[in-house]
Amino acid sequence: MNARIDRLDAALIDVPRGLANVVVTDTAISDVRGTEGFYQYREHSAISLAQRASFEDVWHLFLHGALPTAAQTAAFARSIRSAQENSGVSGLASELASADGRPVDVIHAVKAAWPLLAARAGMLPVYDTDPAQRRADALALTAALPVFLTESWQRLHDRPPLSVLPDRGVVANYLHQLTGREPDAQQEHALTAYLIAVIDHGLNASTFAARVITSTGADVASALAGAIGALSGPLHGGAPSRVLDALDLIRTSADIDPWIQNELAAGRRIMGFGHAVYRTTDPRSELLKSIAISLGGERVERALAFEERAEHMLAEVAPQRELHANVEFYASVVMEAVGVPRDMFTPTFALARSIGWSAHILEQAQDPKIIRPSARYTGPAMHEAP
Amino acid sequence: MNARIDRLDAALIDVPRGLANVVVTDTAISDVRGTEGFYQYREHSAISLAQRASFEDVWHLFLHGALPTAAQTAAFARSIRSAQENSGVSGLASELASADGRPVDVIHAVKAAWPLLAARAGMLPVYDTDPAQRRADALALTAALPVFLTESWQRLHDRPPLSVLPDRGVVANYLHQLTGREPDAQQEHALTAYLIAVIDHGLNASTFAARVITSTGADVASALAGAIGALSGPLHGGAPSRVLDALDLIRTSADIDPWIQNELAAGRRIMGFGHAVYRTTDPRSELLKSIAISLGGERVERALAFEERAEHMLAEVAPQRELHANVEFYASVVMEAVGVPRDMFTPTFALARSIGWSAHILEQAQDPKIIRPSARYTGPAMHEAP
Repeated sequence: MNARIDRLDAALIDVPRGLANVVVTDTAISDVRGTEGFYQYREHSAISLAQRASFEDVWHLFLHGALPTAAQTAAFARSIRSAQENSGVSGLASELASADGRPVDVIHAVKAAWPLLAARAGMLPVYDTDPAQRRADALALTAALPVFLTESWQRLHDRPPLSVLPDRGVVANYLHQLTGREPDAQQEHALTAYLIAVIDHGLNASTFAARVITSTGADVASALAGAIGALSGPLHGGAPSRVLDALDLIRTSADIDPWIQNELAAGRRIMGFGHAVYRTTDPRSELLKSIAISLGGERVERALAFEERAEHMLAEVAPQRELHANVEFYASVVMEAVGVPRDMFTPTFALARSIGWSAHILEQAQDPKIIRPSARYTGPAMHEAP
Repeated sequence: MNARIDRLDAALIDVPRGLANVVVTDTAISDVRGTEGFYQYREHSAISLAQRASFEDVWHLFLHGALPTAAQTAAFARSIRSAQENSGVSGLASELASADGRPVDVIHAVKAAWPLLAARAGMLPVYDTDPAQRRADALALTAALPVFLTESWQRLHDRPPLSVLPDRGVVANYLHQLTGREPDAQQEHALTAYLIAVIDHGLNASTFAARVITSTGADVASALAGAIGALSGPLHGGAPSRVLDALDLIRTSADIDPWIQNELAAGRRIMGFGHAVYRTTDPRSELLKSIAISLGGERVERALAFEERAEHMLAEVAPQRELHANVEFYASVVMEAVGVPRDMFTPTFALARSIGWSAHILEQAQDPKIIRPSARYTGPAMHEAP
C-alpha cells in the first residue's frame, strides 16, 4: 500500500489526564475565574444575576446572548409557556413510567424523554438547521424539562398534577408542582438564586459531552440527553442529597465532631466540601449560605455549625488543601428549606444546567469541526503481518 | 477573597481544533495505523478477523479482551441469547413507537430505549459496580440492540416479528428479521465481515462521547445512549444510505461522468469518498470491495465503474488530496446486496459500533479521573466589579 506520512500518525500530542487545563474551544458564554473567586455569564457577574435577576431573564441571556428588554421579557415568558403547551411533553412521564407497571427514576426518564420529544417533533440535526431553528429546538426541549420533571416525580409518588399558576413564572410553578403549595416570594427568590447560580460553570464533563455530540452535527436533543447522562454520574451531579443524609445523622451540635472524626478515620470524603476549580471559597456557596441564613430555621443553624467544624477539622487533617463548603453543601440546605424533595435535588440541578448546555450546543453548532481526539495504543503488538 | 495561583488558572494548554492528534487516553482495545493502511483489534488484524472470525467471537474479544476458546464460544452464544430473552427489550419498540400513534425513527428510539432498559433493570453507575457487573450490563444492553432495532423497523413498516432461528447466530437472525428470509452462508458472511470491520476505529466522536460520559461514573446505558446520539450526526454516521441515493440516479455507465461533473461543479462532496485518517486506500473499503465483487450483480458492476471514474475525476480536480472510496461506499453496496433496508444502514453500523463503545466504556471505567477540559473566554469583559 502507498504509505506516506500524514498528520494523524505524525505527531501525537500529550496533555494532562482528564484534559485538565486543555483549551478545547473558545467560548463567549461564561468564564470561571477560580483563583479570583468569581465567575461570569457573558459580561455579567453570575452572583449578581442570581441575587437580582429572574430565572427567565438569565435563560434569555444564555439563549439569545443578552438580557431581555422589558418587551422581550414578556414575549420570552409567553414563548416558554407556549413551548411547554405545544411540546407534547405533558403525559410523556406517565407513558414512560407506566409501560411495564414500574416507575422509572426521574433522571433516567429524561434521557429517554428528550430523544422521543425530538423525534416526535421532527427536529433535525444541527447542521441541517439554521441558528433560529436550533434556538427554537433548544427552547422547546428545555422548556419541556420542568414539566417532565414534576410529572415524573408526581407519577413516582402518586401525587396528582396541579394546574399551572398562570401569573407565576417557571420557578414558582416548579415549586408549586412539587410542594402542592403556591410558594411565597422568599421561597421563589431562594430557589431562583440557586438555579441561576448553577446554570453554567465552564466546561464540566456534561457540557463537554454535549459539545462533542453536537460537533458531529447531531440534533439538540441528542446532545442534551448525552449531557444529562454525564450529569447522572456520581463524580459530577450525584452528591447534593448525600449532604442532607449526613446532616440527618446529627441530632445536636455535640454529635458533629464525633461524626466527622469517624468519617475521616474511615478515609471517607466529607460530602459538600472541596471543589476542583475554587481553591478559595466557592462564591456559589457564599451566596447560598447567605440565602440559607435569610430563610432561617433549626436545620440551617445545624448546617452552619457543621460547616464551621468541618472546615476546622479538615484544615487540621489536610492543612495543605483548602477544603471549603462547596456549592452542594448550602444548595442542599436551601433546596430543602424551600420544599424541594430530596430525590429532586439532582433533577433540579439538571433543570438549571440544561440552560447552560443549550447555550454551549448552539455555540458549538457554529463550528464545523468534529471533535475527534486520539488514543495511544498500549496493548500487545499485532500477531500477523498486515 | 483569598486569591492565590492554582493549577486551573495557571496555564491553559492550547491544542489543535477538534483535538486532532491529542492523546486523551491510553487504550489496549485497538490501533488505527492510518499511514500504513491497517488497523488492529488488540493483537489481531481487524481485516483478518473480518474475513475469518464469527461476529460473536470478535464481540467476545472486545468484551473480555481475548478471542474465546471453543468452550467459551458456546457459552458466550448462550449468554447473548439469554441476555436478549431477559433484557425486557421485546415489546419496547412498540411501546416507544406507538405511544402517540406515530412511529419513531429507529436511531432516536434507541437513545430512549437504552436508558429505559437500564432503569428498569436497576443498572448502577460504573463507579458503584465491579468490572464483572459492568461487563454484564454492557452485554445486556448491546445484546438487546439487534432485537430492538429489528422490532423498531418492523413496527415502522408494519412487518410482523418473526421467531428466532435457534441454530443461527446474531447476524443471521438480524438479517432474517429484516428480510423475512433465512440468509444463506454467503450473505451471512458478507454482513458479518462488514460488522466486524466497523466495530471500532479509534477515538471517533461517538466513542469519545461514551468515554467522557463514563468518566463521570455514569451508568453504561447513559454512555451508550450518548454515543449513539453522536453517531446520529451527519458528520459521523450519516452518509451510507446517501451513497446509494447517488447510484440510484445512474442508469448506465454513460451517466456517471456527467453526474460527477455536475456534483463537483456545484461544489458538493461525492458521498463515499475520502476519510480523515486514511490517506492511502481505506483497508475497510478494500475488504468490502472484494466482498461486493464476490456477491456480484449489476449494482456491484455499476459501483465498480462509479468508483473508478470518481477516483479519476477527483484526482483531476484535487490532485494534492488522495480521495479514495471510503468504508461507506462499499458498505452501502454490500448491505444492499444482502438485503439490509436502506433506512437500516446507520442502525446496522450502530449495532456493530456498540460493541466497540462497550469496550471503551469498560476500559474508561477503570480510570477514576473525570474528563473535564477548559475553554478560553472570548466574550465581553465583566461590567461590574466582582
